[in-house]
Amino acid sequence: MTITSASNPRVKAVVALRKPRERRATGRFVIEGRREVARAAVSSVGIETAYVCGELGVTPDEVAALAAGGAEIVDVGREAFERMSVREGPDGVLAVARSLDTSLARLDLPPDPLVLVMAGIEKPGNLGTMVRSALAAGADAIVVADPVVDVENPNVIRASQGALFDAPLAVASEAETRQWLADGGITTFAADPDAALPYWEAPFDRAAAIVIGAEHAGLSSGWRDAATLVSIPMSGRAGVDSLNASAAAAVLLFDAARRRADRTPVR
Amino acid sequence: MTITSASNPRVKAVVALRKPRERRATGRFVIEGRREVARAAVSSVGIETAYVCGELGVTPDEVAALAAGGAEIVDVGREAFERMSVREGPDGVLAVARSLDTSLARLDLPPDPLVLVMAGIEKPGNLGTMVRSALAAGADAIVVADPVVDVENPNVIRASQGALFDAPLAVASEAETRQWLADGGITTFAADPDAALPYWEAPFDRAAAIVIGAEHAGLSSGWRDAATLVSIPMSGRAGVDSLNASAAAAVLLFDAARRRADRTPVR
Repeated sequence: MTITSASNPRVKAVVALRKPRERRATGRFVIEGRREVARAAVSSVGIETAYVCGELGVTPDEVAALAAGGAEIVDVGREAFERMSVREGPDGVLAVARSLDTSLARLDLPPDPLVLVMAGIEKPGNLGTMVRSALAAGADAIVVADPVVDVENPNVIRASQGALFDAPLAVASEAETRQWLADGGITTFAADPDAALPYWEAPFDRAAAIVIGAEHAGLSSGWRDAATLVSIPMSGRAGVDSLNASAAAAVLLFDAARRRADRTPVR
Repeated sequence: MTITSASNPRVKAVVALRKPRERRATGRFVIEGRREVARAAVSSVGIETAYVCGELGVTPDEVAALAAGGAEIVDVGREAFERMSVREGPDGVLAVARSLDTSLARLDLPPDPLVLVMAGIEKPGNLGTMVRSALAAGADAIVVADPVVDVENPNVIRASQGALFDAPLAVASEAETRQWLADGGITTFAADPDAALPYWEAPFDRAAAIVIGAEHAGLSSGWRDAATLVSIPMSGRAGVDSLNASAAAAVLLFDAARRRADRTPVR
């Protein structure tokens, strides 16, 4: 089967999945890009259909690998593919997959876990970048609390480079997240410019959750009251007194990783 | 004077400045956004003209502050303003300024400087975010080596939140940058996954330049040969074995800041 018309119903169904409401209603989302789809194919994500466009250079080997994973393969002409794509330069592979399981209950924590909580993050690129940083730093769980951006947003998937698919990730309300952390005996930390404790003196090597607040709105008073506040001392050079949310997350997460590496016996 | 037509020559001149070639030819660039223009107005940047749109909510106080700084003020109707703007939701302030001085010669370094070198960075958002992180971490100089993205690109200015304007920032070729670092006795460090030395053991508290390579192309062989390679150990969780360029920069810069803070006597 080859789809050539940009008004084909399957093309329209893929386009409709750009809307969070449609993703929720159908329990499906779109993964775009060769790297991202290849990554999903070797993860626990259930790919139902892979749309491939030979005119955009997709090779028979790539198609065979997707088919071997059980995905239905649909050939698509360039015009129709470009209609489905949200990228400026589409690379010819796009898949429809079943929605991720993002319940808190699925998270299974080791002793002294390191957790990243993203509280109300507004920008898909930041959210995806933080997922990538958290996994690189060895975080045991990632919680998107009070989501503003849907984790299945195409720009989240792209910024995470597909790391999202096998991430120990949950989506929950602020109240649920706080309860879950309390139940697990996990201390909550958040950055605040006025805090007396520099982050490198906080006990990030014990059970710790690092909470990153929204880019504009900042941390809610609930998180602020619940958390031990730590400072990221800044120079004030050129008037800079704050960091991009994903930069702050990287600094805190990798300081935790550094101290956890220090205590790991050399093998 | 009020501009109402979107085809007014001044509107066209502002639109033309979206092109790097036009910026170079005229020695001018555009700063968009209330926060960014306000920041430029209190910096050494020379604002020539401020375009303001009352229909978008700009207040007389904001206009007076810009006029007090010596800028020519031009009122613009909403349609014409939206034509000049590159933002989705323009906030009614936009300025034309004289290009920044970005010569290496203007940089004045203290003893044991901390320098960030961005080598061939491709994404404006990453470049701007790294400028902000470097200044927050107290870097003494920022060098954009072999620029792919122009530092006066609107998305660089936006991601830097205007920190660019008073940054000790230069733009130079790779060869010039390497010579300048050698002349200053500055050791060059770059991240490499195979390096034996974890970054937290590298002497970032002495004269140090942290070099961040391009997002896709990575570090050139010239930089790789010149630099002491350090690793950012990663967990490999969910297959993640690399960091976003600006996240890596934040981790390294703030580790340098942490160790420099440790050695600063408490005042």
